[in-house]
Amino acid sequence: MDQRVTRTVDPGAVRISMLLHALLGVNSLLLKPGDTEKLFRMVCDRLVASGCYSAAWVGLIVPGNFKIVPFASSGLEDASWKSMEVTWDNSPYGFTPAGKAIKARKACVMADAATDPQVTQHWREMCRQKAYQSAAAFPVIVNGDLHAVLELYSGAVDGFGREEVDVLASVTANIGLALELAEAEIKRWESDRALQAKLDDFKAMTAGVVKAMSSLVDIIDPFTTGHQRQVAGLACAMAQDMGLPAEEVAGIKVAGLLHDVGKIAVPAGILRKIEALSEEEMSLVRKHPLVGYDILKNIDFGSPVAEVALQHHERLDGSGYPFGLRATATCLEARIVAVADVVEAIAAQRPYRQDMGLAKALEEISRGKSVLYDPWPVDSCLKVFNEKLFSFDHPDGPAEPQDPQNLAV
Amino acid sequence: MDQRVTRTVDPGAVRISMLLHALLGVNSLLLKPGDTEKLFRMVCDRLVASGCYSAAWVGLIVPGNFKIVPFASSGLEDASWKSMEVTWDNSPYGFTPAGKAIKARKACVMADAATDPQVTQHWREMCRQKAYQSAAAFPVIVNGDLHAVLELYSGAVDGFGREEVDVLASVTANIGLALELAEAEIKRWESDRALQAKLDDFKAMTAGVVKAMSSLVDIIDPFTTGHQRQVAGLACAMAQDMGLPAEEVAGIKVAGLLHDVGKIAVPAGILRKIEALSEEEMSLVRKHPLVGYDILKNIDFGSPVAEVALQHHERLDGSGYPFGLRATATCLEARIVAVADVVEAIAAQRPYRQDMGLAKALEEISRGKSVLYDPWPVDSCLKVFNEKLFSFDHPDGPAEPQDPQNLAV
Repeated sequence: MDQRVTRTVDPGAVRISMLLHALLGVNSLLLKPGDTEKLFRMVCDRLVASGCYSAAWVGLIVPGNFKIVPFASSGLEDASWKSMEVTWDNSPYGFTPAGKAIKARKACVMADAATDPQVTQHWREMCRQKAYQSAAAFPVIVNGDLHAVLELYSGAVDGFGREEVDVLASVTANIGLALELAEAEIKRWESDRALQAKLDDFKAMTAGVVKAMSSLVDIIDPFTTGHQRQVAGLACAMAQDMGLPAEEVAGIKVAGLLHDVGKIAVPAGILRKIEALSEEEMSLVRKHPLVGYDILKNIDFGSPVAEVALQHHERLDGSGYPFGLRATATCLEARIVAVADVVEAIAAQRPYRQDMGLAKALEEISRGKSVLYDPWPVDSCLKVFNEKLFSFDHPDGPAEPQDPQNLAV
Repeated sequence: MDQRVTRTVDPGAVRISMLLHALLGVNSLLLKPGDTEKLFRMVCDRLVASGCYSAAWVGLIVPGNFKIVPFASSGLEDASWKSMEVTWDNSPYGFTPAGKAIKARKACVMADAATDPQVTQHWREMCRQKAYQSAAAFPVIVNGDLHAVLELYSGAVDGFGREEVDVLASVTANIGLALELAEAEIKRWESDRALQAKLDDFKAMTAGVVKAMSSLVDIIDPFTTGHQRQVAGLACAMAQDMGLPAEEVAGIKVAGLLHDVGKIAVPAGILRKIEALSEEEMSLVRKHPLVGYDILKNIDFGSPVAEVALQHHERLDGSGYPFGLRATATCLEARIVAVADVVEAIAAQRPYRQDMGLAKALEEISRGKSVLYDPWPVDSCLKVFNEKLFSFDHPDGPAEPQDPQNLAV
């Protein structure tokens, strides 16, 4: 487009065309939420680069006072505009186009800067020095609140045509809309962060309550203190080695921590008995999977925690309890915890079984592999100890003597 | 702007001006994520309304095949365009401007529809019937993927100037950007929903584990079954009556459910003893607040749950246990639970105390008000029973006899 030629034939249409073409790239900037200052500077630059205006600036409206704070500009080379007193109150400083546009909440055009009676001498002098003949200002309204103001200067008297003002008002309206979107996005991110933090709190709380609940069994049955914690640790290491997904490993941790919770119903006298248990006492002990299941069954852990409590004493060949279920009738998690449970119970270095220990424990699961115990977790358990050098952590030290018969109960 | 006059002087600039002005309102539509079909229809309408084009349509590109699916249009009154075979493969149907624009991933102009050798007879006939002389098409690319195509028809041969094609390409690029934003927003909403669902799961899980943990005390001390649950219910009703915020009421519920968890460490024989307890036995019972605190202290409930377990037997005048703390040294939650605890223990309709009941319970807290018990929760408790008709719910029925001396332990 050749300005020289077109200007002579239809200045109005050509100006609008120049202006709109210059603004076209602004859309993509509006669509990308980001740096407000960069956005306003870009808008000012585009408007001045269109050739339609001598200069442009944007001022922010700060809640709580009437000052207009200089924010971005184009075509105003010296920094003096930043120190210019512009307000939107009813003082003499409040009647620049910007001040008037804010008060009216709509576009304001000053057709001849030299003759307007309302503006201060200082503002008029600035226009005279820079050869600005007319000016226009447009408020930027965000969610109904005055947010900023755009002021434009033209080198011609009556430099803002009516259609042109419509276009500029539409542009500032779009900027307001884009800022609303940006604000909405920020709010969404904030609520997202808050939600995530809340989720983390609940995760920690749930983990804490599970751990506390697990510790209650240690109080009831102090001779096997830490048993559930150790089983949980080993079962997790096995599950990881088996390549189970992270959520399932997490579920197995909870299941390990709570698999013996039903012991709470076994009379303490039986749990702490040194002598061999009678048939009747043994049958009370063997109820703990059922009791545990009852305690846990209504909690939606998102993993079979109650089922593990119920099935961790079942054996592949149906020789386990409480139901004598065979392999296919139990969940994999229960078969994993069953192996970890046996190993921890045998390996635990308790005074009365100093002859035993880890080697005997691994011997037991190797011997029972595919008969009593699922071969997959058995192999994994052997690998976890022999290759990955897993070891139980016994910060509470060895527990008090207990009848060997009660092992792995 | 008067078309008749300006067209004679500078058709190029005027067309661009008309076009851009028509498109200005599209921005605000792009900024508001929403209905894609409405957006495309609006764009087609605006383009045709600008007076620059005879018709416009948008077709969607569906993954997995080469068909272009009719989606929105303007200026195509009959429905025949919807049945028009348009593809972007290498068959004869794939060489309309739309098909070519998609294959090239850039704007494609057909300067003279009547003479172009590549298009099918059917497409050429359509142009002839509708007096379309030229056409152009623009791909809409979203996140690097072909999403749609815009095809425009002009009544003039060579109807698409170079600058005009730039403007239209920029508009379709903006539409692609807006769709990317809309897609990002949908993904954010989805992740938000997923996060919220996960949070709800964890809330339910935590509540379930707290309830299960609370029920363990019922197993250990079956003579006061449901005591913690009843205290939690009453304390919540009181806290609500006192106008405490919802999170604090929720915290008091958890505290009520767990305040006696330390009883787990009291030998069952003592808890179930019918006869009066010895001094030594009593001192064991009086350890339960300390044990409960130890069990709960490391869990961040976001409310003083462990503190309530520790302080619910303290009394205003320092006559309570374990520390003999006075009012100001205990938390409000503990003073609320203390009142609910005493009332439930006395009011519980157990066979051996049929003479007692609610009246006696309320008499006790009234008598102890401001001496043993914080007057605020006492007044609230009286109000909750007398005015709000609160009642304990005892679905488990009356419990077995127990020594009165053990009340409220």
